[in-house]
Amino acid sequence: MPFTVAQLAELVAGVAEGHASTLITGANTIENAGEGEVAFAAGRKALDAAAVSRASCVLVPLAFDGQLTAAIIRVSEPRVAFAKLLETIYPRKRLAGGIHPSAVIAATARLGSGCSVGPHVCIGENTQIADGCQIGPGCVLGDDVALGSLSILHSHVTIYDRVRIGARAIVHSGAVIGADGFGFTLAGDHYEKFPQVGAVEIGDDVEIGANCCIDRAALGVTRIGDGTKLDNLVHVAHNCSLGRHVVVAAQTGFSGSVTVGDYAVIGGQAGIGEKAKIEAKAIVGGKAGVLTSQTVHAGEPVWGIPARPLRGHLKGLAYVQKLPELNVLVREIRQRVVELESRREQSPG
Amino acid sequence: MPFTVAQLAELVAGVAEGHASTLITGANTIENAGEGEVAFAAGRKALDAAAVSRASCVLVPLAFDGQLTAAIIRVSEPRVAFAKLLETIYPRKRLAGGIHPSAVIAATARLGSGCSVGPHVCIGENTQIADGCQIGPGCVLGDDVALGSLSILHSHVTIYDRVRIGARAIVHSGAVIGADGFGFTLAGDHYEKFPQVGAVEIGDDVEIGANCCIDRAALGVTRIGDGTKLDNLVHVAHNCSLGRHVVVAAQTGFSGSVTVGDYAVIGGQAGIGEKAKIEAKAIVGGKAGVLTSQTVHAGEPVWGIPARPLRGHLKGLAYVQKLPELNVLVREIRQRVVELESRREQSPG
Amino acid sequence: MPFTVAQLAELVAGVAEGHASTLITGANTIENAGEGEVAFAAGRKALDAAAVSRASCVLVPLAFDGQLTAAIIRVSEPRVAFAKLLETIYPRKRLAGGIHPSAVIAATARLGSGCSVGPHVCIGENTQIADGCQIGPGCVLGDDVALGSLSILHSHVTIYDRVRIGARAIVHSGAVIGADGFGFTLAGDHYEKFPQVGAVEIGDDVEIGANCCIDRAALGVTRIGDGTKLDNLVHVAHNCSLGRHVVVAAQTGFSGSVTVGDYAVIGGQAGIGEKAKIEAKAIVGGKAGVLTSQTVHAGEPVWGIPARPLRGHLKGLAYVQKLPELNVLVREIRQRVVELESRREQSPG
Repeated sequence: MPFTVAQLAELVAGVAEGHASTLITGANTIENAGEGEVAFAAGRKALDAAAVSRASCVLVPLAFDGQLTAAIIRVSEPRVAFAKLLETIYPRKRLAGGIHPSAVIAATARLGSGCSVGPHVCIGENTQIADGCQIGPGCVLGDDVALGSLSILHSHVTIYDRVRIGARAIVHSGAVIGADGFGFTLAGDHYEKFPQVGAVEIGDDVEIGANCCIDRAALGVTRIGDGTKLDNLVHVAHNCSLGRHVVVAAQTGFSGSVTVGDYAVIGGQAGIGEKAKIEAKAIVGGKAGVLTSQTVHAGEPVWGIPARPLRGHLKGLAYVQKLPELNVLVREIRQRVVELESRREQSPG
Repeated sequence: MPFTVAQLAELVAGVAEGHASTLITGANTIENAGEGEVAFAAGRKALDAAAVSRASCVLVPLAFDGQLTAAIIRVSEPRVAFAKLLETIYPRKRLAGGIHPSAVIAATARLGSGCSVGPHVCIGENTQIADGCQIGPGCVLGDDVALGSLSILHSHVTIYDRVRIGARAIVHSGAVIGADGFGFTLAGDHYEKFPQVGAVEIGDDVEIGANCCIDRAALGVTRIGDGTKLDNLVHVAHNCSLGRHVVVAAQTGFSGSVTVGDYAVIGGQAGIGEKAKIEAKAIVGGKAGVLTSQTVHAGEPVWGIPARPLRGHLKGLAYVQKLPELNVLVREIRQRVVELESRREQSPG
Repeated sequence: MPFTVAQLAELVAGVAEGHASTLITGANTIENAGEGEVAFAAGRKALDAAAVSRASCVLVPLAFDGQLTAAIIRVSEPRVAFAKLLETIYPRKRLAGGIHPSAVIAATARLGSGCSVGPHVCIGENTQIADGCQIGPGCVLGDDVALGSLSILHSHVTIYDRVRIGARAIVHSGAVIGADGFGFTLAGDHYEKFPQVGAVEIGDDVEIGANCCIDRAALGVTRIGDGTKLDNLVHVAHNCSLGRHVVVAAQTGFSGSVTVGDYAVIGGQAGIGEKAKIEAKAIVGGKAGVLTSQTVHAGEPVWGIPARPLRGHLKGLAYVQKLPELNVLVREIRQRVVELESRREQSPG
């Protein structure tokens, strides 16, 4: 249902100016917004774009001193306010409550109130689902799983036995949590499997992208802390311990027993070697390769394969780029030395 | 059912020579083909292999002037003709028509004629499936999805709400289309999710590999153009726009808001940074890392991390390889300079 | 149920010392083990940790000469013995036998004795499942599939038509085996699909990680040999041939027609180019990029992009690190040459 500019301003505790009764039915970027849409503009570039935008309403900073034909709403943080409006304009779909009759739920499993369980779901023995969870079609939860309140599993999520996930988790389709860690010992002419009997514990407010794989520990626990966010296709091996509020971009892989400190940021396609230690607030660049047992220091940005401090890596890249020049210089110096030598020989000294 | 050499020749508008009534029951490579099998040979190496092949029939270029014991079929493009024969000899399996009784289909969903819907499928509200589509076992389609005619979803494909896919698409198992883009804002001590309310639009004749992830836009649309082909485990982030007839090898990842021009070719395990622009017909090498906001120019081949024009990158690699040599040379020059200096001091000048 | 130290010692043919009647209910690492838990200690560091461990029982080498308050069990290989105990203490869960009524099984499929088939499984025509297999919830097996005895498919595994898997296989959730290889030919202004009509053959004792993708051959067969182990999210393209007892870490990708020899070890996120040949016992480092048609020689460790022998690659890295130094040296030499030249000019010679 549409909202007036005045209603939206109230929602974000902002100040509306002009056309307060204009109806807003959608939201878009400042470049693409059209009639009936709200957008936001925070930086200089976006504010320039706002001047020519066809948006019907624009969220702007408090200090905005330009003129727009659109209605404006002044707020202290336009982007944050805009995110809030999005939740109102596009409310997150809630699955119909109740348990679909095709779901197969063990007699010993316990579901809280207000849960929704989609078609073709399986839930194992002694599994505990807290209040208000949504389990999408085709999800498979093993035995002794715990899922905190208000968590959302999109379709086709697989949770193996003895995995614990906190409250308000969002797990996207195809993610696999709790599969066996990759542990084998060469025993003569073949590999023997080292039994993977540990567990996985995931905190509150964690989001896990589509087709991610988070392995159970060999012994003990693979941990992911509160508020941590994984993009798609991320691999977390056995016995890793990711801290709180860590952000991991897509296709990154953590080898066994890696530890990651709180608020670290890991770029896409990075690879972290076994037992490496990424300290708090460190930043690992995209495609970086952190070596086995390497430590990335707190707050430090690193890049490259092997990963080293960003500044040093960039300097190294610059030197490599200048190698042709250096090569010419060396050959020129040699020529001058040859000439000096030949004159020396000819000289009477 | 088997075909005679004469029948196959007719199918590809080729000219059969020798043994036109030989029965062909399968197809294989020229190296591995045996009795009853057809193969093709186009290049010099393959034509040499044809001379010793056990194939019963070989597709050869019009100008072929050798002698084979096998029957031959002369055609202008042996590989293309062979692909056509494969479709005849191994007709693509069509699922039995009809809707499996275990499928759960919303009352407001619309299915065209001749569709087949496998067991344990879910189809959401207002979803439109055009004529002749095949939906494999366990697929989950959300609300307001559109799927063009003759499209094939293999088993376990997940399509979130409001994703549109064109005609004749092939989507392999485990692919997830329309999951939330990875958008979070650090708000004090934790990350807040930026709602992902956009959509995905995929053109006609697109093929998407197994376990690929294509995220919905934050706002607006993530687009994949007509005829584009993605290999397995490819990640396409929110708001990307891939053009028409783009080819992307396995495990490559596109960060948010990347644009890729028509006919670009992207190697495997490449990583494309946010807002990068790959222009038409550009070629990104395997494992290359295109930086945030970097432009790869039309038709240009690039490689390396960071990606730069192929020739320059190869030259840089060559210089790095020669560093030990350069090092020796520099030390030798220094020694000669030291000698010159010492003679200079001893000289009467 | 708990075991006494004496019982555990018997299981591993070890010699128990002290507290033989202590009850053991779990297993853990030597660092984390507590009361009632067994651990193992093999190397010097672990034996030091054993001295302060709270474990109730420790497996130690035969020659161990220290003193522990815990009971000890002397064995020749503590790690191997410990793995064996894990299987006893944490017996692998077996699904309840029988076929869940929601499974959809073709009339022509054949299941051996003692198989368990979970809810919402689909099994196609002429598929043969040998004795004692466990098929997890939501698995989809196509037509003409063969699965050897005692194999385990975890939930959501997809097996396309005509895939053969040997005995005692373990396939983790979300793996897709037999999807079409990535084969397209540019035909004028668009790509045409080269039909992928080959098969996949997987040996005995193979383990395949979560969300792996193993494509069928275009023609012929994609092969994975006995005892080979793949970690999560590995991509194996059409017509690859992996040997026996190969170990492949997570997120690695093999392009088309790669061959890998027996006992090769491939690190994580490695990329192997088309038709490359990794010989027996070769070791490919994490993130390495093996070029198209490159050969990695038997037993050779390689690293880097492009991959080259490890020692040479490390040497090259070291030289790159020293480039700033080399640069300073060259500029210093030039200065000295300039001085020599200027003296030369001033000299009477």
